[in-house]
Amino acid sequence: MEELRLIEEIRKRAGSPGKGVRAGIGDDCAVLDYDSKKYLLWAADMLVEGTHFSVKEAGYRKIGRKAVAVNISDIAAMGGVPAYITVAAGIPPRMDRTAVRAVYDGIFGMCKDHGIRVIGGDTNRSDSLVISVSIIGFVEKKRLLRRNGAKEGDLILVTGPVRDGRRDHLDFVPRLKEARFLSARYSIHSMIDVSDGIAPDLGRICAESGLGCKVYAGSIPLSRRLTLEDALYYGESFELLFTMSATESRKLFLDMRSGRRAPLYFIIGEMSRKSGGLRLIRDEGRSVALKTKGYRHL
Amino acid sequence: MEELRLIEEIRKRAGSPGKGVRAGIGDDCAVLDYDSKKYLLWAADMLVEGTHFSVKEAGYRKIGRKAVAVNISDIAAMGGVPAYITVAAGIPPRMDRTAVRAVYDGIFGMCKDHGIRVIGGDTNRSDSLVISVSIIGFVEKKRLLRRNGAKEGDLILVTGPVRDGRRDHLDFVPRLKEARFLSARYSIHSMIDVSDGIAPDLGRICAESGLGCKVYAGSIPLSRRLTLEDALYYGESFELLFTMSATESRKLFLDMRSGRRAPLYFIIGEMSRKSGGLRLIRDEGRSVALKTKGYRHL
Repeated sequence: MEELRLIEEIRKRAGSPGKGVRAGIGDDCAVLDYDSKKYLLWAADMLVEGTHFSVKEAGYRKIGRKAVAVNISDIAAMGGVPAYITVAAGIPPRMDRTAVRAVYDGIFGMCKDHGIRVIGGDTNRSDSLVISVSIIGFVEKKRLLRRNGAKEGDLILVTGPVRDGRRDHLDFVPRLKEARFLSARYSIHSMIDVSDGIAPDLGRICAESGLGCKVYAGSIPLSRRLTLEDALYYGESFELLFTMSATESRKLFLDMRSGRRAPLYFIIGEMSRKSGGLRLIRDEGRSVALKTKGYRHL
Repeated sequence: MEELRLIEEIRKRAGSPGKGVRAGIGDDCAVLDYDSKKYLLWAADMLVEGTHFSVKEAGYRKIGRKAVAVNISDIAAMGGVPAYITVAAGIPPRMDRTAVRAVYDGIFGMCKDHGIRVIGGDTNRSDSLVISVSIIGFVEKKRLLRRNGAKEGDLILVTGPVRDGRRDHLDFVPRLKEARFLSARYSIHSMIDVSDGIAPDLGRICAESGLGCKVYAGSIPLSRRLTLEDALYYGESFELLFTMSATESRKLFLDMRSGRRAPLYFIIGEMSRKSGGLRLIRDEGRSVALKTKGYRHL
């Protein structure tokens, strides 16, 4: 059963999330009413040995680190600031105390870097290592970013150069600073973090916003050794993908130019009518359909 | 590495949970400030195939059901009402669409019975089935129940007759009604749900409250076929274990007597000084130490 379809089914069955919930399934986080100024953001992402990492490749510390990082990335994509996590871990009998501690070293290290408190936990025996982190964060009401706000004619931007999900997925730094910078200064219409690939994740923005898109293949900023195919369909880069008006993006690029840092935001396409579908424009001008299925499926 | 010790280590490393958090690791839920009347309760519990269930024994629907029920039980033990869940699932390739749907049938059925909304989800490929539910609920400030409030001389009570964790762990109804009834009418000093066995879970109340206890073996209300050993050390019964003053418990029993229902609350012992340790008093008067290790360990 393919993942996107399964999520769609679950969402239909879940129905309307009800009073007090601004966003349920269909965004990186659920959004709950909190106080007069802020919303509460809530997400849960699970890492499974053999699917998201192999211990041999990763080492235990990096696995713990990534389990927190993917959750921070969900909070970042909504424009918010992470605050608390709970950690439910399934631990195989082969792991000794040193190995278990290394996992938690990674977890606590990442939390320390981002001012996050660990306030709940649960440990279980399991055949393979599973780490399921749930995260709570907060966002000022005006700075909430969702997937459903893209408008026709919006430019599509991505942070980058896009990291190589096959090689860097354990070490990536979630784009929290960038998301907070963007949500403070610019009118961003929609945002998502790229966990499954630019194509499926942009597909989610299109679906939620009721639009189509054009992506210019040559404009996707690839990091060294990353192929276009992997940028589009492999994912695990955890870059931010977002849309804003052309006028607003000019402001962003003027601001960028005055700084001395390497370029960090790249225009890769634009939002179009739904009827136009999701198109990838090759350098020679030929256009092909963007597939919305990513690498990972059930 | 033994589970209680691991949790203790994690807790030390987590440190003080900080402003805005009333309780972190060491209770069934984390407790966050919410509004002037209520606290937000937050827990996460994971079910792992082979550890908490076998598919052959359970059927997929019951597994989904239990994944939600154990989380509702955490909210109940704090005196609160569940409101929302997120579901992160690790799904093995052998499961077809019907099987996956059956898991979600169980999840949604349990949610419907308790007025809970599913507002977030994540699905992953995994070798064995893993369901990690995170739950948010709310509790009126005055009705919050914790593990650390037991007082010397408190009577120890348990709901029951204690269910058989080996046989009933898939079908149990979380003691939500009972917890809400108790937290509305009586001054309850401490409460926990029995997931690991009366002994280890009572051990947690003792540790959090800085006390010891005496449990009268003959007074533990066993359901049919349940052995004392399993009631004490196997767990998975998800009964509520709580403490209150003798005066307060008289009120409870007077109220109970006027009803026509079968008895549901049973006195099984009393809280004592820490120096007395945790003791099990056998019918012949001999006393032995209660072990605080449960059946499940890593």
